Amino acid sequence: MKKGERTRDHILAQSAAVFNQHGYAASSMSDLMLATGLEKGGIYNHFASKEQLALEAFDYATGLIERRYEAALEKRNSAIDRLSAVMDVFLEFIHDPVLPGGCPVLNAAIESDDSNENLRQRTKLVLTGWKTRIQGIVELGVAKGELKADTDAAKLSTIMLATLEGAVMMSKVCRDATHMRMAASFLEDHLKTLLVKEAG
Amino acid sequence: MKKGERTRDHILAQSAAVFNQHGYAASSMSDLMLATGLEKGGIYNHFASKEQLALEAFDYATGLIERRYEAALEKRNSAIDRLSAVMDVFLEFIHDPVLPGGCPVLNAAIESDDSNENLRQRTKLVLTGWKTRIQGIVELGVAKGELKADTDAAKLSTIMLATLEGAVMMSKVCRDATHMRMAASFLEDHLKTLLVKEAG
Repeated sequence: MKKGERTRDHILAQSAAVFNQHGYAASSMSDLMLATGLEKGGIYNHFASKEQLALEAFDYATGLIERRYEAALEKRNSAIDRLSAVMDVFLEFIHDPVLPGGCPVLNAAIESDDSNENLRQRTKLVLTGWKTRIQGIVELGVAKGELKADTDAAKLSTIMLATLEGAVMMSKVCRDATHMRMAASFLEDHLKTLLVKEAG
Repeated sequence: MKKGERTRDHILAQSAAVFNQHGYAASSMSDLMLATGLEKGGIYNHFASKEQLALEAFDYATGLIERRYEAALEKRNSAIDRLSAVMDVFLEFIHDPVLPGGCPVLNAAIESDDSNENLRQRTKLVLTGWKTRIQGIVELGVAKGELKADTDAAKLSTIMLATLEGAVMMSKVCRDATHMRMAASFLEDHLKTLLVKEAG
């Protein structure tokens, strides 16, 4: 990696952590200068504006989560194992987040929905991608006869995402991982009811 | 109501709407002056600082939701009807929010958890109160023989809150009420499985 690329990557990593904890609008250039150890000009060499940096920092953060998904899903073959792997990624937002501040998609969704249309569009895209991934796992599980034929994949994917993200919010604000554990345990139990029983 | 009280109430109502859409830290005194139509001095006559106004605006917002709960729960007697009434309050965050910007508790939780300890404490208190209300309805339902004796009230209250708040987030950022409807329908179905079957 060239020095310019290393600096750019450093700015993204440090800024993404600041934005994820304090919000995109509430983080000032001074906060970003302090976090990156760079002068304003050093940041503007790589990003046209704070808004541009914010959007790329969001992409950087969701890229980190994407790699968590890939690692968690590796060698998981059955639908139930793959859905469990997806849940593990959410549990990590509490115990070992990709960045300080919890789930970057949840944070960006709440901040952007009424006040930052570019970020809202980007957040919606990522969230929809996560939903599509879960829905695909469920649909394949139904096609392979692992999950009951009448399983509503669209509804299940929404329920899983809503429950997990809501639990991240509750565990974070209460500083109590119990909520997250209860959500995961509830969803595991629900998934078991969708399994096709093995004959004999 | 005296003129001073009316002005104070006006500042709280307008500021609460600004904070709920744009965040507490990201809203400037200029934003609040614009929304209230008052000069800075007019606001500081009633609130010592933006931080103080933010906390009282949060209390104002959650007070509005409290009145929604009271109206929804009125004349609802059975546990299932009362839990359904609680869900209605969340559906209103999408279709008819107490303030523009969705659920004030969800918004404050996400903003405060890493960056505003006073607001985090206050948000945790309100969220815990909501959880206690749901848990109390479930426990009474069990005691009255309406809900199955092995119903886990603590877990169910966390699941309901997490799923509903997560669905508010998804419906808001995607501008699609389907997520909220699916969450409510899923929880209604789940609650039915907890009902004690009438004999005969």
